[in-house]
Amino acid sequence: MAVRTIEVREKVMARNDELAARVRERLAEARVPALNLVSSPGSGKTLLLEQTLKTLGDRLEIAVVSGDVQTQNDADRLALHTDRLVQAVVTGGACHLDARQVMTALDALDLATTDLLFIENVGNLVCPASWDIGETAKVVMFSVTEGEDKPVKYPKMFEKASFAILNKIDLLPYLDFDIEAAIAFARQVNPELRFFRTSALTGEGLEKWYEFLIGRVEKTPA
Amino acid sequence: MAVRTIEVREKVMARNDELAARVRERLAEARVPALNLVSSPGSGKTLLLEQTLKTLGDRLEIAVVSGDVQTQNDADRLALHTDRLVQAVVTGGACHLDARQVMTALDALDLATTDLLFIENVGNLVCPASWDIGETAKVVMFSVTEGEDKPVKYPKMFEKASFAILNKIDLLPYLDFDIEAAIAFARQVNPELRFFRTSALTGEGLEKWYEFLIGRVEKTPA
Repeated sequence: MAVRTIEVREKVMARNDELAARVRERLAEARVPALNLVSSPGSGKTLLLEQTLKTLGDRLEIAVVSGDVQTQNDADRLALHTDRLVQAVVTGGACHLDARQVMTALDALDLATTDLLFIENVGNLVCPASWDIGETAKVVMFSVTEGEDKPVKYPKMFEKASFAILNKIDLLPYLDFDIEAAIAFARQVNPELRFFRTSALTGEGLEKWYEFLIGRVEKTPA
Repeated sequence: MAVRTIEVREKVMARNDELAARVRERLAEARVPALNLVSSPGSGKTLLLEQTLKTLGDRLEIAVVSGDVQTQNDADRLALHTDRLVQAVVTGGACHLDARQVMTALDALDLATTDLLFIENVGNLVCPASWDIGETAKVVMFSVTEGEDKPVKYPKMFEKASFAILNKIDLLPYLDFDIEAAIAFARQVNPELRFFRTSALTGEGLEKWYEFLIGRVEKTPA
């Protein structure tokens, strides 16, 4: 029984990896960097994206694929801030997006005129770490209300990510949170991780995030 | 392929449900109510348990099974506050505890002298909703830093829970969080849900939680 489960699981993952490679090809052909935004529930992914769309929307053509277990709440919020299509994916119980869902979502987007794609994954620090969805890079987000040791408790996600956002820094004065300890824990797991310290609410720290995004687009040869 | 995946999955779940039924029997025989504590990462499960052990430890014999993806950090924190065994389960990548892990953990506990068992599940609002681990009731915890709409975004967890804890209420003055809206969203999904509003940090609201726990033990016939 156990052997058969693993065998089937491996086939499902292999099929996903094939599709992820095709997603990656399509994005590369269209020269669209795609950031897969992963986090705990409620760490502020949607608000960060809202702010990003409001601030960079005039300068960059940003598309969003937004995944949720149920509801289209996030996609509906994001659609208010962009004229580009925000594509909602409801996973119906699954704890992560998969490459097939992203492939289908891409069909609804005009990649040729898109500068940058965000994929807002399901809020969960476990499952999305195991599923390649064809993204250019994973950005892991956590918040200063969550506890410093999240990176060592959910190491795979922090290993797989290239960038990390530590959000809600506006709440630091009211919390007993050691930001340097949190970053040290993350670097234990992944020494290469580049950090952004932000408050998506007040805007603190977002300038560097915006510069980074503009840089990503410029690095993708036109 | 899809059919076979579903078939194998159903067998795994059926086997889990059998084991969960045996866990439930063992707990009933020993007259130990078992609360399965589920939440997002960082909503404060471990701190709530630390406070509960400190406050009720003289009065009740409380045992804990603590599940984590990696690390024994939570179990180590809890072990400081109780003489009873805290049993750590490291899931090694899985996003939930299963009934087999709980069964094995029970072997290490002295159920005959235990009044109350907490099972601290992996921090995740998706997977643990689907896995019966033989608990008496699920307690879903979320925090006022997470956004009011969590119950409708992760409805299965709120449907399956009998009790809900809305934690970190000490931060309400610094947040734009509508506590009544959050509770209304939760009641949309599960009208029977009984709510506790707590700050595990300051102790606000914990009296009602402690009374509830004492009541659960008293209701379990000796």
